[in-house]
Amino acid sequence: MLKSLFLNNVNEEFCIYLMHTSLLPEEIEDLKRYISANKSRLEVIYVDENYFHDAPVPFHYTKEMYFRLLAFQLLPHDLKRILYLDPDILVINPIRELYDTEFDGYMFAAAYHDKLSLKELNKIRLFPYSIDAYYNSGVLLMNLESLRQNVDAQDIFKFVEENRPKLIMPDQDILNALFAKQIKTIDGKKYNYDARYYHYYKLARNGLYDMDHIIYNTVIIHFCGKKKPWHKKYTGKFHSLYKHYEKLAFS
Amino acid sequence: MLKSLFLNNVNEEFCIYLMHTSLLPEEIEDLKRYISANKSRLEVIYVDENYFHDAPVPFHYTKEMYFRLLAFQLLPHDLKRILYLDPDILVINPIRELYDTEFDGYMFAAAYHDKLSLKELNKIRLFPYSIDAYYNSGVLLMNLESLRQNVDAQDIFKFVEENRPKLIMPDQDILNALFAKQIKTIDGKKYNYDARYYHYYKLARNGLYDMDHIIYNTVIIHFCGKKKPWHKKYTGKFHSLYKHYEKLAFS
Repeated sequence: MLKSLFLNNVNEEFCIYLMHTSLLPEEIEDLKRYISANKSRLEVIYVDENYFHDAPVPFHYTKEMYFRLLAFQLLPHDLKRILYLDPDILVINPIRELYDTEFDGYMFAAAYHDKLSLKELNKIRLFPYSIDAYYNSGVLLMNLESLRQNVDAQDIFKFVEENRPKLIMPDQDILNALFAKQIKTIDGKKYNYDARYYHYYKLARNGLYDMDHIIYNTVIIHFCGKKKPWHKKYTGKFHSLYKHYEKLAFS
Repeated sequence: MLKSLFLNNVNEEFCIYLMHTSLLPEEIEDLKRYISANKSRLEVIYVDENYFHDAPVPFHYTKEMYFRLLAFQLLPHDLKRILYLDPDILVINPIRELYDTEFDGYMFAAAYHDKLSLKELNKIRLFPYSIDAYYNSGVLLMNLESLRQNVDAQDIFKFVEENRPKLIMPDQDILNALFAKQIKTIDGKKYNYDARYYHYYKLARNGLYDMDHIIYNTVIIHFCGKKKPWHKKYTGKFHSLYKHYEKLAFS
């Protein structure tokens, strides 16, 4: 993810924020060197486990699920916005336009994946917190000023406590259930392209979203789901492209 | 092809030889600028149409079919070797080892594609010039010194004249029929990987030739056949990778 971000945004200098509870100093040094070599810098935010002492953690998950939801508290308070990015993505075109998206009063900007089956499934699952779209939290632009003013960590913890059994993808479910109305919708085919649905997207708009269009226009390809392009048995339209960036990252 | 060659061989300075009969000065200047910007240089060899006045040209082909076969006459006589590359390829790893291949007395080095059907088909077609393997001429390392000493253009023209109806892929057929015994075999999966046969190759050697192996080890991916990755309707395992390089070439 980082390598593709750097290579396709050579005129930008990024500040990468990394939140962690347990990385070793040498791991952080490695990452620092790597990011510096790409003209950007790393800011490390150590989060004490006790920070979440009163937070409920559903079975099979860890406290890190709150990092994204409570980033507005953990990041420096002079930061106005931040773009959260999942690690299972490639950034294949300039990202500035996404980063500079106007919030228009919203707390977040994110995309939803409009495969009906998934959307409908999730709508039902999260009933009665009726929502219009189920947003993907893997690419999430945060309005930190607004979040600091309007969100209370205790409300989030309370929601988790009350909905434990229903939460399948905890942080994404929470984001949708609590904040769907505060999320500005961005173009999913441009900023959060689900690599699994190449053929589905391509059917839309008379074939507009073909490989040519994606490579030249899509900014973020997101390898959603259980099958990841670094797995031996992966097959998918962007497998060769992913491996290409992986090789560059390791060389 | 050129962009991928340059990007994956940043420490090399190439001399690209271009033979033509009809390019315009501004087209050549464009190409010169492009190649210079990539730390390499272009040498243009203008070939007068009359050069081939006594050469037979089978129906549906042009005199350019002889450029590859007679390169040893057309290139500067102090050149000892040259690597011919088709335009429908990507060079995704360092190419020096291929370029430096020992000839061991052979006139050429090339790979054959070991899909049985094709090989058998061509063997039969070229009978009685019985050959052991049908080499692909898209990646062809030439021993120019040996060719200058041992090959006569008239023998090539004579062979074409006598075999007109049988020649399907003229220059490749000629190369095989006349020179198969003078071709040193190089590893096709490394230096002339046929992009159409990903699944076929992958079955070999217990899955060794998977995407991971190809991206890290294969030097040349060759988009053989009628379906090319720059066509709108192309589908194939290396489509996204091809489009990625195309974008870099045009940017």
